[in-house]
Formats: sequence, structure tokens, C-alpha cells
Amino acid sequence: MPLIDHIKWNPHGLAPMILQDETSREVLMVGWVNEEALAKTVETKTAHFWSRSRKKLWKKGESSGHVQVVKDIRLDCDVDVILALVESKGPACHEGFRSCFFRRLEPLGPDGELVTFAEREFDPGEVYGDKATGGIHHGDTESTENVNAGNRGTASP
Amino acid sequence: MPLIDHIKWNPHGLAPMILQDETSREVLMVGWVNEEALAKTVETKTAHFWSRSRKKLWKKGESSGHVQVVKDIRLDCDVDVILALVESKGPACHEGFRSCFFRRLEPLGPDGELVTFAEREFDPGEVYGDKATGGIHHGDTESTENVNAGNRGTASP
Repeated sequence: MPLIDHIKWNPHGLAPMILQDETSREVLMVGWVNEEALAKTVETKTAHFWSRSRKKLWKKGESSGHVQVVKDIRLDCDVDVILALVESKGPACHEGFRSCFFRRLEPLGPDGELVTFAEREFDPGEVYGDKATGGIHHGDTESTENVNAGNRGTASP
Repeated sequence: MPLIDHIKWNPHGLAPMILQDETSREVLMVGWVNEEALAKTVETKTAHFWSRSRKKLWKKGESSGHVQVVKDIRLDCDVDVILALVESKGPACHEGFRSCFFRRLEPLGPDGELVTFAEREFDPGEVYGDKATGGIHHGDTESTENVNAGNRGTASP
């Protein structure tokens, strides 16, 4: 049985893949993979995802250089969630943080806003160009954009 | 702005919530929450999820006693994935492991099967009754069952 056949893909042929830093154990990001992206991740030992908006495979770090080297891939009990332990070659979040999980749900700030507790490690504008600072994701920066959007109705993944 | 309104829910009103052990930093499990489950998690400081199969709120540990006490809740950059750091009062996986991620994708075993690398910490049959050993999830054990199933077509979450 080929590796890929062990995964229980969703109706769109996708599964979420969590990246966790193998040393700090920090959860870095969550994105979607299809068969092709997972096969490429296994083959190259670097994290690849499936871009639902662009409908293409993309390599994490392809524009930023912040490649995530995959050291181990684990599956949950229902084989529908993937956990990749990585050696992180740079901050995983396109907003400049090591982890995408840089804000707390509570307590909120004085104006009811989410509070950032992490330190920004790079300037997205410098790494990705002006588009990133305008809130328009591109290149590998859209990894976690609308993680839930692919779940809607009969829309394509 | 209420806490809950910060989340970007999917079209089914759900978001994935990852549980991570705050001490060992082990990723324990992934399940779905809706507004009610997240509000209950915040209010009670114990992980609650939304069961899509039973269409009801459930508390992790309600039958096993393996409650997951929530110490911190973080959101990713797109506010559509939730990361809860927990103090784990018992193995999180209904199959008897501390983490649901107890198997590796590769290398496969001699018969092409997924290899379990973790130690089982309890007997599911004893904790959940015979149904668990028959592969039928029930009670809080269905947390990660078909994480991807709710994404299908126009089916209800």
C-alpha cells in the first residue's frame, strides 16, 4: 500500500497538515495538502502545500526562503490530519512571526482587539514586497489564508 | 467586539481547534469547534468540541475523565485555526495514547502498514467499554473522527 493511500482525504482530496518545530515544539502553521503536495513533501523533505486559490502546488519558503525541512510525519488516529515535525529555516508566518499563532484569544486589548504576544522577526514588506503589507497574500504567503474556505458547499478546494 | 466574533468560521460555522500539551508541547489532537463549543471552552477552561455526527456539544473527557484543562488559546494569522494549550488530565486519544498522533507516515512496516511509535497508556475497552474496541467511537471518543468529513459538499457539519 503506497504511503499516500493511508490518508483519509476529505471530499476535496485534501487534509490539513500542521507544521511543528521539532526542537522548540512550537506549532508553526496549518495548511492543506493534497496527494501531490504530500508526495512532494515526502520526496523532497520540505513542506509543500496545495493552494486552493491558485489551484497549484507550492513550496513553503519558495519566495521567502523560509523553507521548512521535514524530519518526521505523523498521522492522527483517524488518519485525516497530518503532523509534520520540521527544522524551520526561517519564520513560518508571512506576517513576520516564527509561528502563525502569535495572538491570544483572551484577554482582549483595551479596544477589544486581539493581543499579539510574540515578537515579529522580519518585515513582510521587505521579504515579500509591498503586496504583503497591503494584506494581499501571494507566493507562499497564502499558506494559511482561509484555511476554512475550502470547506464550503460544493465549491472547489 | 466579543471574543467569539474574532474567529473566521467556515461556511458550516466551524473551525479546527488543536490541543497542545503546555508542558511537553506535544500536539495531542485536533477537533472542530463552533461558537458554542469555543464559548464553553473559554468559560469552563476545559476543551469542548462540536460533534458533527451527533450535532451536539461535547466535553473532551466527559466519559473517560481525561479532561483537557485550557491554559491559553491562540489564533493563527488568518484567525481560522485555534490552538489551545492544555494541561492534560489523561491521554487525549480514545485509542489509549497520550496523543492521537501515535503513528508515522514513513517508513511503513513490513506489510505496508503504518507503524505505531508511541506507548499505549490505557486500554480503550476498559475506559470506554466494548464499543471502543470495535472501532465504534462514542462519547468523547469521536473527537477526531472524520475531521475532514464535515467539509463535504453541502452536507451539514
